[in-house]
Amino acid sequence: MYKLVLMRHGESQWNLENRFTGWADVDLTEKGREQARNAGKLLSGFRFDKAYVSMLKRAIRTLWITLDTMDCMYIPVEKSWRLNERHYGNLQGLNKAETAQKFGDEQVLIWRRSYSIAPPALPEDDPRHPKWEERYAHVPQDALPSTECLKDTVARVLPLWNEQIAPDIKAGKTILITAHGNSLRALIQHLDKMSEEAILALNIPTGQPLVYELDENLTPIRHYYLADPEEIARELEAVKAQGKAK
Amino acid sequence: MYKLVLMRHGESQWNLENRFTGWADVDLTEKGREQARNAGKLLSGFRFDKAYVSMLKRAIRTLWITLDTMDCMYIPVEKSWRLNERHYGNLQGLNKAETAQKFGDEQVLIWRRSYSIAPPALPEDDPRHPKWEERYAHVPQDALPSTECLKDTVARVLPLWNEQIAPDIKAGKTILITAHGNSLRALIQHLDKMSEEAILALNIPTGQPLVYELDENLTPIRHYYLADPEEIARELEAVKAQGKAK
Repeated sequence: MYKLVLMRHGESQWNLENRFTGWADVDLTEKGREQARNAGKLLSGFRFDKAYVSMLKRAIRTLWITLDTMDCMYIPVEKSWRLNERHYGNLQGLNKAETAQKFGDEQVLIWRRSYSIAPPALPEDDPRHPKWEERYAHVPQDALPSTECLKDTVARVLPLWNEQIAPDIKAGKTILITAHGNSLRALIQHLDKMSEEAILALNIPTGQPLVYELDENLTPIRHYYLADPEEIARELEAVKAQGKAK
Repeated sequence: MYKLVLMRHGESQWNLENRFTGWADVDLTEKGREQARNAGKLLSGFRFDKAYVSMLKRAIRTLWITLDTMDCMYIPVEKSWRLNERHYGNLQGLNKAETAQKFGDEQVLIWRRSYSIAPPALPEDDPRHPKWEERYAHVPQDALPSTECLKDTVARVLPLWNEQIAPDIKAGKTILITAHGNSLRALIQHLDKMSEEAILALNIPTGQPLVYELDENLTPIRHYYLADPEEIARELEAVKAQGKAK
C-alpha cells in the first residue's frame, strides 16, 4: 500500500481579498504561513522521499515552511508549471464579489466551476501572459495557457502525474504534492474517477494535508485529512462562500 | 563567456560558537539570515537558471532566503550530499578554541587545513555517523565519509561538477552554488588549478556571492566578490582568527 499526501497552499493575500488569482504570483498571508507550520506539525510522523510543487510562490513557501517544520528541508523538490493553479484568463486580479455583481453569481460560478467553459482569455500581448515570464521560458509557448477551464487544467496536470509522480510512487517513494485548489482537483478527479459534476462540487481547504492510501494500481483505498474533521468542515464552508456576491 | 556564482552559507550557530561543524546540521543565526538577504540584494541583477546546494540546512536556508529576496523561488534547485561541508570526523561538535588548547594550535591547523591528513574518524556505530541518517539513505554506504581531509572532500565534490554542473554551464545555464567553506575550496582549487598550499591558504567569507567569469573551456577569466572589498577583507580576517586558541 502506498501513501500520498496532497496539500493546497496556505491562505494567500488574494484568497483573503477574494480575488481571482490563477497564475498571478501572490504570496501567503501571515495566516497562510501559520497554516503551513501547522501542516508540518500534523505531518511529523511522515517521512517523504520527494515533494512536487507548482512554480508559484504561495505553494513553494507553503512547502518550504512545512519541510522546515518537519526538519527535512533536504528532501528533493521538483517544481513544475503543470501543478500551477488553473489559469483564470482575464479574470485574474478581479475581486470575486465585484465580478459576481457585474456578471451575476451564476456566470461567476460557471467560470469558477464549469468543467469545460473557460473565462475570457488574456490577450497574447498582455504583460500578464505567461509567455512573457522568464519562469516559463523552458515551457513550449503553445503549451502555455491564456485561460483555462478545469478540463484544460486536468489535461495539463495529468502528464506530470503519469510520467513522473505515478512512477515515483510505484518505485516506493512517499510523495508530498503542494499545489492549488484546481490542480489538486485535477489529480483527485483522476485518482477517484470522479464525474465532472462531482469534482466541480469538491472543495479543498487551504494548508490542510490530505492523505491518500493507494493500492498497487494506485487506486485509492481511502483518504482523510489529518486535522480535526470539524475544523475541516468549517474551512470548507468558508471556501464555498467565496464565489458569492457580498 | 559564462558566469557562475559561488556562495558560502551565512553565519551558523556553530560558526558563532567556534565549533567544528562538518556534517552536523546546524542552523543559521539571525546574522546568517541577514547575510542571505543581503546576498539576494547584491544578486538582484542576476538571473539564475538553476541552483545547486548541499543537504545541510544552513546552506539550504541561505539559498531559500537569497532566492526569496531575488523573487525567484521558482528556479530548479538540486540538493546534493557532494556539496556538504568537509566531514570533520570525531572533532564535530568540539569548540575550536578548546581543541586548540588540548592539541595545540598547530595540530588544529593541520586538521583544519591539511590537504591530506584527516582528523580522527567517527566510529561506525556512532549515532552521528551519516550512515544512520535517513537523508543519506540514497547514497552508497561506502561513499559516506566518517572523516575527511580536504583531498577527500575534493574527490567527493568533483564528480558533481564534472557530471552535472559543468555540463549545465556549457549548455548555457547560469548556476548558483550555495555550499560550504571546504566544498567551495574544492571547486575553486579545480577551477583555478591551485596548488595544495594555495588552496589551504584561501579563506571564503560567509554569505558573500563570489562571481566567476569562465571562458568556453570553463577556465576562469576573473572572479570577484559583489560586496565592498573592504568589507570582504574584514570578514576574511575574522575567518582566519577562528582556528586560534582564545
